[in-house]
Amino acid sequence: MSLLVVGSVAFDSVETPTERHENVLGGSATFFSYAASFFTPVQLVAAVGEDWPAEHTKLLTDRGIDCSGLETVKGGKTFRWSGKYLPNMNDRETLEVHLNVLGGFDPKLTEAHRRSPFLFLANGSTTTQLSVLRQMTGATLRVADTMDLWIRTQHDQVLELLKEIDGIVMNDSEAKLLCEDENLVRAGHKVLEMGPKFVVIKKGEHGVMFFSKYETYVLPAFPTPDVVDPTGAGDSFAGGMMGYLAEQGNFEPATLKKAMAYGTLVASFNVEAFSLDRMKQITRADLERRMESYQRMLSF
Amino acid sequence: MSLLVVGSVAFDSVETPTERHENVLGGSATFFSYAASFFTPVQLVAAVGEDWPAEHTKLLTDRGIDCSGLETVKGGKTFRWSGKYLPNMNDRETLEVHLNVLGGFDPKLTEAHRRSPFLFLANGSTTTQLSVLRQMTGATLRVADTMDLWIRTQHDQVLELLKEIDGIVMNDSEAKLLCEDENLVRAGHKVLEMGPKFVVIKKGEHGVMFFSKYETYVLPAFPTPDVVDPTGAGDSFAGGMMGYLAEQGNFEPATLKKAMAYGTLVASFNVEAFSLDRMKQITRADLERRMESYQRMLSF
Repeated sequence: MSLLVVGSVAFDSVETPTERHENVLGGSATFFSYAASFFTPVQLVAAVGEDWPAEHTKLLTDRGIDCSGLETVKGGKTFRWSGKYLPNMNDRETLEVHLNVLGGFDPKLTEAHRRSPFLFLANGSTTTQLSVLRQMTGATLRVADTMDLWIRTQHDQVLELLKEIDGIVMNDSEAKLLCEDENLVRAGHKVLEMGPKFVVIKKGEHGVMFFSKYETYVLPAFPTPDVVDPTGAGDSFAGGMMGYLAEQGNFEPATLKKAMAYGTLVASFNVEAFSLDRMKQITRADLERRMESYQRMLSF
Repeated sequence: MSLLVVGSVAFDSVETPTERHENVLGGSATFFSYAASFFTPVQLVAAVGEDWPAEHTKLLTDRGIDCSGLETVKGGKTFRWSGKYLPNMNDRETLEVHLNVLGGFDPKLTEAHRRSPFLFLANGSTTTQLSVLRQMTGATLRVADTMDLWIRTQHDQVLELLKEIDGIVMNDSEAKLLCEDENLVRAGHKVLEMGPKFVVIKKGEHGVMFFSKYETYVLPAFPTPDVVDPTGAGDSFAGGMMGYLAEQGNFEPATLKKAMAYGTLVASFNVEAFSLDRMKQITRADLERRMESYQRMLSF
């Protein structure tokens, strides 16, 4: 089934303890849609500036991603983010953010977009997320990401969003901030009480936690020695997860757990190179092979 | 099969964000031997002072733990540790350490101790661990714990120990310190190259990593909302792990993985109360029930 993602497309400048890459392809909706495209047809809605090279769009359309919703803003510049990873490669500091065209981003969905049964609101202003959500009232499954900035500055809107969506994906530090609770198991249950049918808490290198009224579980990250650039790990996780759900066409507990596992594995590939470089090298067969190792790893 | 543990027995004073307990039963060998006693006969070798109450020894002997190696040092005082947990309940600061009788602890094993096929060197001075190890040359499986203090102050001895033992158990921060590498997968492999047949890296609330020449894997911690006191989590993990191995009488890859899982589950109970209070309430059947949930959690 078709999966619609609304979010950011960006130029990233990323510094790790050993390398620095400038102006590489990034953005929450970019990582998400590429990751999801291993599983299902994806429609991308985002805004770019006139500095956006056609080759980036081609990379996505070559994956079968429908980029008709990628709007080029006249006279505008594309969103830019730059960050630096600490030696542990799990924590990072944001050095610069230039919102540019993202500042005025107010997507109007076409009829074709609105018919998509699966929706993911990638990281972005909660106000924008709510506006999109209200254009997608007929969707089968509506999931959102959020971040600390919005929890702090658009707290009421975040609570409103949580009441209206089916699922939420957030980082461990964000769940702790939102719930004012340092225990992630308790925090997960508290977020669940705020409205969504399921809650996914991403713990970076430590994996992911899942909460619904039926079950609570943790899946570890796939252990890779080659962590080159963690940028986009969370977005590619969400892309793998939502892509698999859309492919299966349901969000039953068993499908959801398998989706968590696929998200984990796509993310484990994504961190093995800068930008989308590692995802560009792999196929669905590589994901299936890693899935076999992962399942073997977790059985005893 | 019989399992011998050499380590510390202590009075702990523990402060968490909500509670403070003074002079409760603690010590690496105490948590370890109680945890292991769910699975196998345990022999405990440790030293206490004249302030040691008979009821603590009784608690252990009632579990079938052989305390004939628990030496009371004339005129001595028992080892004391006090610490305070940060709000995340995963990090802690040590407030006070009084080595007391542990300072002069130089165990001479009896013939009965030496015949034990399974040995665990719980946390303690590396010099003492080496001395015990050399009295136990005939053991089937010899595993040690270590900590940052010894890695810093007895670095050469730690390297010597790693060459002579079969397995090592350490915390994530200790593995990073020893290997000067922030990536735990790489660090685990580096420790493996230092000598042991297998390496276990404990990540606290994030679970445990395992490395051998045959495999690398991660198992998550069992998600419990009731983290009351994490003291002894690592020691009870090791006790559950070694207890199961001794019960099975081998350390084949499949047995080792199941041992990691049992260690994880004993530790998940241990953190649900202060001192040994939660372990005292449970039976092997409770462990089996949690094992079923844990295996269900990890299958998809």
